[in-house]
Amino acid sequence: MGVIVMKFGGTSMAGIERIRNVAARVKREVEAGHAVAVVVSAMAGETDRLVNFCKEASPLADPAEYDVVVASGEQVTSGLLAIALQAAGLKARSWLGWQLPIATSPAHSTARIGSIDTGAVLTAMQGGEVAVIPGFQGMTADRRVTTLGRGGSDTSAVAVAAALKADRCDIYTDVEGVYTTDPRIVPRARKLGKITYEEMLELASVGAKVLQTRSVELAMKEKVRVQVLSSFSDEPGTLVVDEDEIVEQELIAGVAYNRNEAKVTVVKVPDLPGKVSAIFGPLAEANINVDMIIQSIATEAKDGTSTTDVTFTVPQTELTRARAILEREAGTIGHERILADDGVCKVTVVGVGMKSHAGVAVTMFKALASRGINIQAITTSEIKVSVLIAEEYLELAVRVLHTAYGLDA
Amino acid sequence: MGVIVMKFGGTSMAGIERIRNVAARVKREVEAGHAVAVVVSAMAGETDRLVNFCKEASPLADPAEYDVVVASGEQVTSGLLAIALQAAGLKARSWLGWQLPIATSPAHSTARIGSIDTGAVLTAMQGGEVAVIPGFQGMTADRRVTTLGRGGSDTSAVAVAAALKADRCDIYTDVEGVYTTDPRIVPRARKLGKITYEEMLELASVGAKVLQTRSVELAMKEKVRVQVLSSFSDEPGTLVVDEDEIVEQELIAGVAYNRNEAKVTVVKVPDLPGKVSAIFGPLAEANINVDMIIQSIATEAKDGTSTTDVTFTVPQTELTRARAILEREAGTIGHERILADDGVCKVTVVGVGMKSHAGVAVTMFKALASRGINIQAITTSEIKVSVLIAEEYLELAVRVLHTAYGLDA
Repeated sequence: MGVIVMKFGGTSMAGIERIRNVAARVKREVEAGHAVAVVVSAMAGETDRLVNFCKEASPLADPAEYDVVVASGEQVTSGLLAIALQAAGLKARSWLGWQLPIATSPAHSTARIGSIDTGAVLTAMQGGEVAVIPGFQGMTADRRVTTLGRGGSDTSAVAVAAALKADRCDIYTDVEGVYTTDPRIVPRARKLGKITYEEMLELASVGAKVLQTRSVELAMKEKVRVQVLSSFSDEPGTLVVDEDEIVEQELIAGVAYNRNEAKVTVVKVPDLPGKVSAIFGPLAEANINVDMIIQSIATEAKDGTSTTDVTFTVPQTELTRARAILEREAGTIGHERILADDGVCKVTVVGVGMKSHAGVAVTMFKALASRGINIQAITTSEIKVSVLIAEEYLELAVRVLHTAYGLDA
Repeated sequence: MGVIVMKFGGTSMAGIERIRNVAARVKREVEAGHAVAVVVSAMAGETDRLVNFCKEASPLADPAEYDVVVASGEQVTSGLLAIALQAAGLKARSWLGWQLPIATSPAHSTARIGSIDTGAVLTAMQGGEVAVIPGFQGMTADRRVTTLGRGGSDTSAVAVAAALKADRCDIYTDVEGVYTTDPRIVPRARKLGKITYEEMLELASVGAKVLQTRSVELAMKEKVRVQVLSSFSDEPGTLVVDEDEIVEQELIAGVAYNRNEAKVTVVKVPDLPGKVSAIFGPLAEANINVDMIIQSIATEAKDGTSTTDVTFTVPQTELTRARAILEREAGTIGHERILADDGVCKVTVVGVGMKSHAGVAVTMFKALASRGINIQAITTSEIKVSVLIAEEYLELAVRVLHTAYGLDA
């Protein structure tokens, strides 16, 4: 008898009719002879409703009490799914975060899972009872409710799968799997049968939010075989697995993009030691995530002083805050002025095959150049190449690259 | 430093603005030097929403999972009130049913409170921290979530007050206290300054639902001084206390009524031993609460057999079920036919003063007769007299009795 974990997101749990549909899917796995644990999200929209209550009660809501409020959404769907499973003729019960327990760090609203006690639940599962576990929630050592941060239910599912030593962790969502790129931009995008943890991480980090980044990191660390599939269809999904499991490695797994980019240029920064850290230190302290950084060659003025332009990207949603910080620090940095441009986007090609193949970046640059798309910045890792371009070229760039790497169906 | 418990119902907790108002009231008590525990209901309408989810998921929802779902409403308001109290400058934290814990019987959806561990919470309260406790919920010995049944938050509040040996348990609601009768019927109804537990119980049982019956029983047993008052005004409320505390006893505390009555007459029941239990046994088994019972004098037919008519009342909402049961049992009972009348109501006068005064019932009968109101049935206890009358006379009867007992303001 195999042990599997099934995770259903908010869209799959939105209303009793859909919860009944989830119960039917679970029943199929039970009838196939599996011991099943189901991890559930709150109904779509419910967490937002609860978060808004907290914000309205106080903009600086105590994170410990915020967790008490928002964790209730998953408690509700856990009980309802247990009821629906029983109505479908299965044995089932809910196991709340404090009942298992799921022990987490005390970092309220962004807690990390430490350990999960699976003794009692595994016994129940082996006795044929489906265990329904609310995602997103846990408990501190001093028995306070915690939550894992938005999208934390994926992480809960992977952690439960690791603790149960599950054969598979199936993440049911509203898409059918991981695609070579966004099918809304490239209709000939293909669903991937398999993808490596590393590729999935890079795709997630550049905006292809099929799985929460933390859940992929955890799956990679714990070697949990994750499958992404749709709760609204019966098509096979995408398996996220170790590189070893993928026999025939594609060069490029996919093309991703991120519109939430803004470019900042700090003009004429004195070319002196400490100036770069005077820019990025305060941004880091404010938790603003700086991505691509380019520093121009220093130029010397007539008076002998030397200056340089420092360009970098931040999330568009942080642009206002970033500018305010740089203006506050103007005395220390000593720059002439700041330019900001939120009309940019990042396009990324990802593939573990890159590790052993040269020329991947060149293909990218040539393909973009052939359509007259100017590259404003570049970053690379072992398995990805990202470029910053004007946002108006986003769709064109994605299509061109999808074709250039032979990904079209 | 006195210890007080404040309880706020669903109307008082409906939305953040009202929760802030609750926080302001709590702050006043803290500033007056009290150690305060607050027991809260779910937002008005929320429990219904959650109950409906359960019913929709399965008409026969597992009560253990039903409890997991519906207990979440009070969890949300507990966290939100703790946040609002902190925003008002107080120290505060929520203590969920499983965190205290509030130990209950395993009777899911209708659990009874066994004991409440107040060690940790009392220490926190004495350190100036307001304890926010969700009403309605508890935990079984094997750590499953329970609820106390509808209106259970009043009972939670009284139980918490008893466990904390609180000086007072203030139940904030949407009325200003307990009135001599329904002010919508008698505008000259007076708010009572004090009322005994026994009177409150009788009033609650005949439909004056200011406090849940179980909470009054518990307050009486544990000698908890309860105050009923409005969360929307600053008027003093009504104290519910032991008889000893009321120096000048009024003869009658109030006039109550209940529209949810139906009269059933089982016609020509053979006058033989066992026939009465053949009627009431099956009704009791079906948990139908039979109230007033009248049996007519037996009459003898020409063939020498003797029959009697048995009349009784049941809640109107149970009438259909009661008839069906009697029809099912017709073979055993042997009656001729069943008459049902849902056009009746019950009017009750309540007062501990009755114990030492004769003539209370006579005053009632005379007052009703003077307006030509026919009495169809009567029940009495030590401290109340109830009559069954045609529903069309309800308002008239209440007004006449209110005047007859000198209760008009």
